[in-house]
Amino acid sequence: MSRNIAIIGGTGAEGFGLGLRFACAGAQIRIGSRDAEKAHAAAGRIREIVPHADVTGGLNTDAVANSGIAILTVPLTAQIATLKSVRANFHPGSILVDATVPLEAAIGGSPMRPMTMFYGSAAQQAARNVPDGVPVVAAFHSLSADLLADLDQPIDSDILICGDKPEPKLSVRDLIKMLPGARPVDAGPLENARMVENLTALLISLNIRKKARHAGVRITGLEPE
Amino acid sequence: MSRNIAIIGGTGAEGFGLGLRFACAGAQIRIGSRDAEKAHAAAGRIREIVPHADVTGGLNTDAVANSGIAILTVPLTAQIATLKSVRANFHPGSILVDATVPLEAAIGGSPMRPMTMFYGSAAQQAARNVPDGVPVVAAFHSLSADLLADLDQPIDSDILICGDKPEPKLSVRDLIKMLPGARPVDAGPLENARMVENLTALLISLNIRKKARHAGVRITGLEPE
Repeated sequence: MSRNIAIIGGTGAEGFGLGLRFACAGAQIRIGSRDAEKAHAAAGRIREIVPHADVTGGLNTDAVANSGIAILTVPLTAQIATLKSVRANFHPGSILVDATVPLEAAIGGSPMRPMTMFYGSAAQQAARNVPDGVPVVAAFHSLSADLLADLDQPIDSDILICGDKPEPKLSVRDLIKMLPGARPVDAGPLENARMVENLTALLISLNIRKKARHAGVRITGLEPE
Repeated sequence: MSRNIAIIGGTGAEGFGLGLRFACAGAQIRIGSRDAEKAHAAAGRIREIVPHADVTGGLNTDAVANSGIAILTVPLTAQIATLKSVRANFHPGSILVDATVPLEAAIGGSPMRPMTMFYGSAAQQAARNVPDGVPVVAAFHSLSADLLADLDQPIDSDILICGDKPEPKLSVRDLIKMLPGARPVDAGPLENARMVENLTALLISLNIRKKARHAGVRITGLEPE
Protein backbone atom coordinates (compact mmCIF):
# COMPACT_ATOMS: atom_id res chain seq x y z
CA MET A 1 0.00 0.00 0.00
CA SER A 2 2.82 2.38 0.75
CA ARG A 3 3.89 2.45 -2.86
CA ASN A 4 0.39 3.47 -3.86
CA ILE A 5 0.66 7.24 -3.88
CA ALA A 6 -1.91 9.95 -4.49
CA ILE A 7 -0.57 13.29 -5.59
CA ILE A 8 -3.10 15.90 -4.50
CA GLY A 9 -2.67 18.75 -6.91
CA GLY A 10 -0.71 16.51 -9.20
CA THR A 11 -1.27 18.70 -12.25
CA GLY A 12 0.83 21.49 -10.75
CA ALA A 13 4.55 21.64 -11.43
CA GLU A 14 5.70 20.23 -8.08
CA GLY A 15 3.09 17.49 -7.97
CA PHE A 16 3.63 16.52 -11.58
CA GLY A 17 7.37 16.29 -10.98
CA LEU A 18 6.93 14.10 -7.92
CA GLY A 19 4.47 11.88 -9.78
CA LEU A 20 6.91 11.58 -12.65
CA ARG A 21 9.84 10.65 -10.43
CA PHE A 22 7.85 8.13 -8.40
CA ALA A 23 6.36 6.61 -11.56
CA CYS A 24 9.92 6.21 -12.86
CA ALA A 25 10.82 4.46 -9.64
CA GLY A 26 7.98 1.97 -10.03
CA ALA A 27 5.37 3.33 -7.63
CA GLN A 28 1.66 3.22 -8.42
CA ILE A 29 0.64 6.85 -8.86
CA ARG A 30 -2.76 8.51 -8.81
CA ILE A 31 -2.56 12.04 -10.09
CA GLY A 32 -5.32 14.03 -8.40
CA SER A 33 -6.86 17.33 -9.40
CA ARG A 34 -10.08 19.25 -8.91
CA ASP A 35 -10.48 18.72 -12.65
CA ALA A 36 -10.50 15.04 -13.62
CA GLU A 37 -9.74 15.82 -17.27
CA LYS A 38 -6.58 17.72 -16.35
CA ALA A 39 -5.52 14.83 -14.14
CA HIS A 40 -6.07 12.33 -16.96
CA ALA A 41 -3.99 14.52 -19.25
CA ALA A 42 -1.17 14.79 -16.71
CA ALA A 43 -1.17 11.02 -16.24
CA GLY A 44 -0.96 10.66 -20.01
CA ARG A 45 2.04 13.00 -20.15
CA ILE A 46 3.81 10.89 -17.53
CA ARG A 47 3.11 7.72 -19.52
CA GLU A 48 4.57 9.39 -22.62
CA ILE A 49 7.78 10.11 -20.74
CA VAL A 50 7.86 6.85 -18.76
CA PRO A 51 6.26 4.07 -20.82
CA HIS A 52 6.28 1.58 -17.91
CA ALA A 53 4.56 4.08 -15.60
CA ASP A 54 1.68 2.76 -13.49
CA VAL A 55 -0.19 6.05 -13.35
CA THR A 56 -3.81 7.13 -13.50
CA GLY A 57 -5.49 10.49 -13.16
CA GLY A 58 -8.73 11.54 -11.52
CA LEU A 59 -10.33 13.71 -8.90
CA ASN A 60 -8.35 14.51 -5.76
CA THR A 61 -11.11 12.84 -3.75
CA ASP A 62 -10.78 9.56 -5.62
CA ALA A 63 -7.00 9.67 -5.50
CA VAL A 64 -7.04 10.06 -1.71
CA ALA A 65 -9.72 7.39 -1.26
CA ASN A 66 -7.68 4.85 -3.19
CA SER A 67 -4.18 5.46 -1.93
CA GLY A 68 -2.22 4.75 1.22
CA ILE A 69 -0.14 7.90 1.11
CA ALA A 70 -1.35 11.21 -0.25
CA ILE A 71 1.17 13.92 -1.02
CA LEU A 72 -0.21 17.46 -0.94
CA THR A 73 1.57 19.70 -3.43
CA VAL A 74 -0.77 22.66 -3.87
CA PRO A 75 0.20 26.30 -3.33
CA LEU A 76 -0.30 27.69 0.17
CA THR A 77 -3.39 29.60 -0.97
CA ALA A 78 -5.08 26.33 -1.91
CA GLN A 79 -3.87 24.20 1.00
CA ILE A 80 -6.77 24.58 3.43
CA ALA A 81 -9.53 24.48 0.82
CA THR A 82 -8.02 21.42 -0.83
CA LEU A 83 -7.72 19.56 2.45
CA LYS A 84 -11.35 20.39 3.26
CA SER A 85 -12.36 19.06 -0.14
CA VAL A 86 -10.72 15.65 0.44
CA ARG A 87 -11.33 15.44 4.18
CA ALA A 88 -14.07 12.83 3.84
CA ASN A 89 -11.93 10.63 1.63
CA PHE A 90 -9.16 9.79 4.07
CA HIS A 91 -9.49 6.29 5.49
CA PRO A 92 -7.88 4.23 8.24
CA GLY A 93 -4.24 3.94 7.31
CA SER A 94 -4.14 7.13 5.25
CA ILE A 95 -1.00 9.23 5.63
CA LEU A 96 -0.91 12.85 4.48
CA VAL A 97 2.46 14.15 3.35
CA ASP A 98 2.54 17.93 3.28
CA ALA A 99 5.04 19.65 1.02
CA THR A 100 3.58 23.14 1.32
CA VAL A 101 6.01 26.01 1.71
CA PRO A 102 4.53 29.22 3.14
CA LEU A 103 6.05 31.96 1.02
CA GLU A 104 5.19 35.61 0.80
CA ALA A 105 4.47 35.00 -2.89
CA ALA A 106 1.11 33.63 -1.72
CA ILE A 107 0.04 37.17 -0.87
CA GLY A 108 1.63 38.89 -3.84
CA GLY A 109 5.10 39.19 -2.34
CA SER A 110 8.42 37.50 -2.89
CA PRO A 111 9.06 33.75 -3.24
CA MET A 112 12.29 34.35 -1.36
CA ARG A 113 10.58 35.23 1.93
CA PRO A 114 8.84 32.72 4.20
CA MET A 115 5.71 33.62 6.12
CA THR A 116 4.91 32.58 9.66
CA MET A 117 1.75 30.55 10.02
CA PHE A 118 -0.48 30.84 13.07
CA TYR A 119 0.20 27.20 13.98
CA GLY A 120 3.92 27.55 13.34
CA SER A 121 4.20 25.89 9.94
CA ALA A 122 2.21 24.97 6.88
CA ALA A 123 2.54 21.33 7.96
CA GLN A 124 0.91 22.03 11.32
CA GLN A 125 -1.78 23.95 9.48
CA ALA A 126 -2.33 20.84 7.38
CA ALA A 127 -2.61 18.75 10.55
CA ARG A 128 -5.44 21.03 11.74
CA ASN A 129 -7.33 20.31 8.54
CA VAL A 130 -7.28 16.53 8.32
CA PRO A 131 -9.54 14.18 10.27
CA ASP A 132 -8.40 13.00 13.68
CA GLY A 133 -6.13 10.00 13.34
CA VAL A 134 -4.70 10.91 9.95
CA PRO A 135 -1.00 11.43 10.58
CA VAL A 136 0.70 14.31 8.81
CA VAL A 137 4.32 14.07 7.74
CA ALA A 138 6.15 17.07 6.28
CA ALA A 139 8.55 16.21 3.46
CA PHE A 140 9.72 16.89 -0.11
CA HIS A 141 10.06 20.66 0.35
CA SER A 142 13.65 20.73 -0.83
CA LEU A 143 13.02 19.22 -4.27
CA SER A 144 12.31 21.93 -6.80
CA ALA A 145 9.72 21.34 -9.53
CA ASP A 146 12.38 22.16 -12.13
CA LEU A 147 14.66 19.48 -10.76
CA LEU A 148 11.91 16.89 -10.56
CA ALA A 149 10.82 17.49 -14.15
CA ASP A 150 14.31 17.05 -15.56
CA LEU A 151 14.89 13.30 -15.42
CA ASP A 152 18.42 13.74 -16.74
CA GLN A 153 19.22 15.68 -13.61
CA PRO A 154 20.06 13.48 -10.62
CA ILE A 155 18.50 14.30 -7.28
CA ASP A 156 21.37 15.46 -5.09
CA SER A 157 19.56 16.40 -1.92
CA ASP A 158 18.52 15.19 1.47
CA ILE A 159 14.81 15.23 2.20
CA LEU A 160 14.03 16.30 5.74
CA ILE A 161 11.07 14.55 7.33
CA CYS A 162 9.07 15.94 10.24
CA GLY A 163 6.22 14.18 11.98
CA ASP A 164 4.94 13.13 15.36
CA LYS A 165 4.41 9.39 14.80
CA PRO A 166 7.21 6.96 13.96
CA GLU A 167 5.40 4.57 11.60
CA PRO A 168 4.16 7.12 9.08
CA LYS A 169 7.62 8.68 9.03
CA LEU A 170 9.11 5.26 8.26
CA SER A 171 6.64 4.85 5.39
CA VAL A 172 7.68 8.21 3.99
CA ARG A 173 11.33 7.32 4.49
CA ASP A 174 10.80 4.19 2.42
CA LEU A 175 9.16 6.26 -0.30
CA ILE A 176 12.07 8.67 -0.40
CA LYS A 177 14.52 5.81 -0.72
CA MET A 178 12.81 4.89 -4.00
CA LEU A 179 14.20 8.11 -5.52
CA PRO A 180 17.86 7.67 -6.48
CA GLY A 181 20.04 10.34 -4.88
CA ALA A 182 17.47 11.41 -2.32
CA ARG A 183 18.32 10.65 1.31
CA PRO A 184 15.67 10.82 4.01
CA VAL A 185 16.72 12.59 7.22
CA ASP A 186 14.42 12.47 10.23
CA ALA A 187 14.22 16.08 11.37
CA GLY A 188 12.05 15.53 14.42
CA PRO A 189 8.46 16.35 15.30
CA LEU A 190 5.98 18.09 13.04
CA GLU A 191 6.59 21.40 14.78
CA ASN A 192 10.11 21.35 13.31
CA ALA A 193 8.59 21.70 9.86
CA ARG A 194 8.76 25.48 10.27
CA MET A 195 12.54 25.23 10.08
CA VAL A 196 12.41 22.95 7.05
CA GLU A 197 9.94 25.29 5.32
CA ASN A 198 12.26 28.21 6.11
CA LEU A 199 15.19 26.31 4.69
CA THR A 200 13.25 25.86 1.47
CA ALA A 201 12.73 29.60 1.20
CA LEU A 202 16.49 29.93 1.54
CA LEU A 203 17.05 27.37 -1.25
CA ILE A 204 14.59 29.20 -3.48
CA SER A 205 16.41 32.42 -2.73
CA LEU A 206 19.72 30.79 -3.69
CA ASN A 207 18.20 29.47 -6.90
CA ILE A 208 16.97 32.92 -7.84
CA ARG A 209 20.03 34.86 -6.74
CA LYS A 210 22.53 32.46 -8.29
CA LYS A 211 20.50 31.67 -11.39
CA ALA A 212 20.63 28.02 -10.39
CA ARG A 213 17.58 25.81 -10.73
CA HIS A 214 18.34 22.81 -8.65
CA ALA A 215 19.68 24.01 -5.30
CA GLY A 216 19.26 21.26 -2.75
CA VAL A 217 20.67 20.50 0.65
CA ARG A 218 22.82 17.86 2.27
CA ILE A 219 23.23 17.51 6.01
CA THR A 220 26.82 16.52 6.73
CA GLY A 221 28.27 14.86 9.80
CA LEU A 222 25.45 12.38 10.43
CA GLU A 223 26.04 8.69 10.98
CA PRO A 224 24.44 6.46 8.33
CA GLU A 225 21.03 5.28 9.55
CA MET B 1 43.98 43.72 7.62
CA SER B 2 41.31 41.19 6.76
CA ARG B 3 43.38 38.38 8.26
CA ASN B 4 43.57 40.30 11.52
CA ILE B 5 40.58 38.96 13.38
CA ALA B 6 39.10 39.82 16.75
CA ILE B 7 36.99 37.16 18.39
CA ILE B 8 34.55 38.97 20.68
CA GLY B 9 33.72 36.48 23.38
CA GLY B 10 36.67 34.36 22.32
CA THR B 11 36.85 32.50 25.63
CA GLY B 12 33.50 30.81 24.97
CA ALA B 13 33.38 27.47 23.20
CA GLU B 14 32.34 28.79 19.79
CA GLY B 15 34.72 31.74 19.84
CA PHE B 16 37.61 29.65 21.10
CA GLY B 17 37.02 27.10 18.37
CA LEU B 18 36.92 29.74 15.64
CA GLY B 19 40.07 31.36 17.03
CA LEU B 20 41.78 27.99 17.09
CA ARG B 21 40.84 27.15 13.50
CA PHE B 22 41.81 30.58 12.16
CA ALA B 23 45.09 30.50 14.08
CA CYS B 24 45.81 27.14 12.48
CA ALA B 25 45.12 28.69 9.10
CA GLY B 26 47.63 31.47 9.70
CA ALA B 27 45.39 34.39 10.61
CA GLN B 28 46.39 36.92 13.27
CA ILE B 29 43.92 36.39 16.11
CA ARG B 30 42.96 38.61 19.02
CA ILE B 31 40.92 36.70 21.56
CA GLY B 32 38.64 39.18 23.31
CA SER B 33 36.83 38.87 26.62
CA ARG B 34 35.38 41.08 29.31
CA ASP B 35 38.12 39.56 31.45
CA ALA B 36 41.60 40.15 30.04
CA GLU B 37 43.11 37.36 32.15
CA LYS B 38 40.71 34.80 30.73
CA ALA B 39 41.51 36.01 27.21
CA HIS B 40 45.26 35.69 27.87
CA ALA B 41 44.70 32.16 29.13
CA ALA B 42 42.62 31.21 26.07
CA ALA B 43 45.30 32.60 23.76
CA GLY B 44 47.85 30.53 25.66
CA ARG B 45 45.76 27.39 25.18
CA ILE B 46 45.63 28.04 21.44
CA ARG B 47 49.42 28.46 21.34
CA GLU B 48 49.83 25.17 23.17
CA ILE B 49 47.77 23.41 20.51
CA VAL B 50 49.10 25.39 17.54
CA PRO B 51 52.73 26.39 18.22
CA HIS B 52 52.91 28.69 15.17
CA ALA B 53 49.74 30.54 16.19
CA ASP B 54 49.82 34.33 15.99
CA VAL B 55 47.34 34.88 18.81
CA THR B 56 47.02 37.33 21.67
CA GLY B 57 44.34 37.82 24.29
CA GLY B 58 42.90 40.94 25.86
CA LEU B 59 39.77 42.95 26.47
CA ASN B 60 37.00 42.85 23.84
CA THR B 61 37.43 46.61 23.46
CA ASP B 62 41.11 46.31 22.60
CA ALA B 63 40.52 43.37 20.28
CA VAL B 64 37.91 45.32 18.30
CA ALA B 65 40.04 48.48 18.21
CA ASN B 66 42.99 46.62 16.76
CA SER B 67 41.32 44.33 14.21
CA GLY B 68 39.76 44.71 10.80
CA ILE B 69 37.14 42.06 11.30
CA ALA B 70 35.48 41.28 14.62
CA ILE B 71 33.52 38.05 15.00
CA LEU B 72 30.85 38.12 17.69
CA THR B 73 30.39 34.71 19.29
CA VAL B 74 28.60 35.42 22.56
CA PRO B 75 25.29 33.86 23.62
CA LEU B 76 22.14 35.71 22.61
CA THR B 77 21.67 36.97 26.18
CA ALA B 78 25.01 38.77 25.99
CA GLN B 79 24.78 40.03 22.39
CA ILE B 80 23.34 43.50 22.93
CA ALA B 81 25.29 44.29 26.08
CA THR B 82 28.53 43.14 24.49
CA LEU B 83 27.99 45.24 21.38
CA LYS B 84 27.26 48.28 23.54
CA SER B 85 30.48 47.65 25.44
CA VAL B 86 32.61 47.70 22.27
CA ARG B 87 30.60 50.27 20.35
CA ALA B 88 33.16 53.02 20.80
CA ASN B 89 35.99 50.80 19.61
CA PHE B 90 34.87 50.18 16.05
CA HIS B 91 36.81 52.25 13.53
CA PRO B 92 36.57 53.09 9.83
CA GLY B 93 36.94 49.81 8.01
CA SER B 94 35.67 47.66 10.88
CA ILE B 95 33.43 44.76 9.90
CA LEU B 96 31.28 42.98 12.46
CA VAL B 97 30.56 39.33 11.78
CA ASP B 98 27.61 38.09 13.81
CA ALA B 99 27.36 34.37 14.55
CA THR B 100 24.59 34.64 17.13
CA VAL B 101 21.80 32.07 16.98
CA PRO B 102 18.58 33.05 18.76
CA LEU B 103 17.55 29.88 20.56
CA GLU B 104 14.89 29.31 23.17
CA ALA B 105 17.70 28.09 25.43
CA ALA B 106 18.44 31.78 26.05
CA ILE B 107 15.24 32.00 28.12
CA GLY B 108 15.53 28.63 29.81
CA GLY B 109 13.98 26.62 26.97
CA SER B 110 15.28 24.23 24.38
CA PRO B 111 18.37 24.67 22.18
CA MET B 112 16.39 22.95 19.44
CA ARG B 113 13.90 25.82 19.04
CA PRO B 114 14.69 29.14 17.42
CA MET B 115 13.17 32.37 18.67
CA THR B 116 11.95 35.22 16.52
CA MET B 117 13.67 38.53 17.13
CA PHE B 118 11.83 41.83 16.85
CA TYR B 119 14.06 42.88 13.94
CA GLY B 120 13.77 39.48 12.28
CA SER B 121 17.11 37.94 13.18
CA ALA B 122 19.93 38.16 15.68
CA ALA B 123 22.09 39.56 12.90
CA GLN B 124 19.69 42.44 12.27
CA GLN B 125 19.58 43.00 16.02
CA ALA B 126 23.38 43.24 15.91
CA ALA B 127 23.14 45.79 13.11
CA ARG B 128 20.94 47.98 15.34
CA ASN B 129 23.66 47.96 17.98
CA VAL B 130 26.77 48.95 16.05
CA PRO B 131 27.69 52.50 15.02
CA ASP B 132 26.42 53.79 11.68
CA GLY B 133 28.74 52.73 8.90
CA VAL B 134 29.92 49.50 10.49
CA PRO B 135 28.70 46.75 8.16
CA VAL B 136 27.32 43.59 9.73
CA VAL B 137 27.75 40.23 8.03
CA ALA B 138 26.06 37.11 9.39
CA ALA B 139 28.18 33.96 9.14
CA PHE B 140 29.67 30.92 10.87
CA HIS B 141 26.39 29.76 12.45
CA SER B 142 26.64 26.28 11.00
CA LEU B 143 30.00 25.37 12.57
CA SER B 144 29.48 23.77 15.95
CA ALA B 145 31.88 24.50 18.78
CA ASP B 146 32.51 20.77 19.14
CA LEU B 147 33.54 20.52 15.52
CA LEU B 148 35.76 23.58 15.67
CA ALA B 149 37.59 22.32 18.77
CA ASP B 150 38.41 18.95 17.24
CA LEU B 151 41.20 19.70 14.80
CA ASP B 152 41.28 16.07 13.66
CA GLN B 153 37.74 16.54 12.37
CA PRO B 154 37.58 18.17 8.93
CA ILE B 155 35.08 20.93 8.36
CA ASP B 156 32.51 19.51 5.96
CA SER B 157 30.06 22.35 5.71
CA ASP B 158 29.08 25.37 3.71
CA ILE B 159 29.01 28.66 5.56
CA LEU B 160 26.11 30.85 4.53
CA ILE B 161 26.86 34.56 4.45
CA CYS B 162 24.23 37.28 4.71
CA GLY B 163 24.88 40.99 4.46
CA ASP B 164 23.80 44.13 2.68
CA LYS B 165 27.15 45.37 1.32
CA PRO B 166 29.26 43.44 -1.20
CA GLU B 167 32.78 44.33 0.01
CA PRO B 168 32.43 43.18 3.61
CA LYS B 169 30.84 39.95 2.37
CA LEU B 170 33.82 39.40 0.09
CA SER B 171 36.17 39.93 3.04
CA VAL B 172 34.25 37.34 5.04
CA ARG B 173 34.24 34.99 2.07
CA ASP B 174 38.03 35.26 1.91
CA LEU B 175 38.23 34.47 5.61
CA ILE B 176 36.07 31.39 5.21
CA LYS B 177 38.23 30.17 2.37
CA MET B 178 41.13 30.02 4.83
CA LEU B 179 39.38 27.13 6.61
CA PRO B 180 39.89 23.85 4.71
CA GLY B 181 36.57 22.21 3.89
CA ALA B 182 34.46 25.28 4.53
CA ARG B 183 32.75 26.79 1.48
CA PRO B 184 31.29 30.29 1.59
CA VAL B 185 27.83 30.64 0.04
CA ASP B 186 26.35 34.10 -0.41
CA ALA B 187 22.83 33.78 0.99
CA GLY B 188 21.67 37.30 0.23
CA PRO B 189 20.88 40.35 2.33
CA LEU B 190 21.18 40.56 6.09
CA GLU B 191 17.45 40.01 6.48
CA ASN B 192 17.98 36.46 5.18
CA ALA B 193 19.98 35.71 8.32
CA ARG B 194 16.73 34.66 9.99
CA MET B 195 16.62 31.65 7.69
CA VAL B 196 20.25 30.80 8.32
CA GLU B 197 19.73 31.12 12.08
CA ASN B 198 16.69 28.84 11.80
CA LEU B 199 18.73 26.34 9.82
CA THR B 200 21.25 26.28 12.64
CA ALA B 201 18.53 25.42 15.13
CA LEU B 202 17.65 22.54 12.82
CA LEU B 203 21.29 21.37 12.73
CA ILE B 204 21.47 21.56 16.53
CA SER B 205 18.27 19.56 16.71
CA LEU B 206 19.77 16.93 14.39
CA ASN B 207 22.93 16.79 16.48
CA ILE B 208 20.93 16.22 19.64
CA ARG B 209 18.39 13.82 18.18
CA LYS B 210 20.93 11.75 16.29
CA LYS B 211 23.66 11.94 18.91
CA ALA B 212 25.90 13.46 16.28
CA ARG B 213 28.20 16.34 17.17
CA HIS B 214 29.22 17.76 13.85
CA ALA B 215 26.11 18.14 11.72
CA GLY B 216 26.76 20.67 8.99
CA VAL B 217 25.13 21.63 5.74
CA ARG B 218 26.00 21.60 2.06
CA ILE B 219 23.96 23.39 -0.56
CA THR B 220 23.91 21.25 -3.69
CA GLY B 221 23.17 22.27 -7.27
CA LEU B 222 25.08 25.58 -7.25
CA GLU B 223 27.57 26.52 -9.94
CA PRO B 224 31.11 27.04 -8.61
CA GLU B 225 31.68 30.74 -7.89
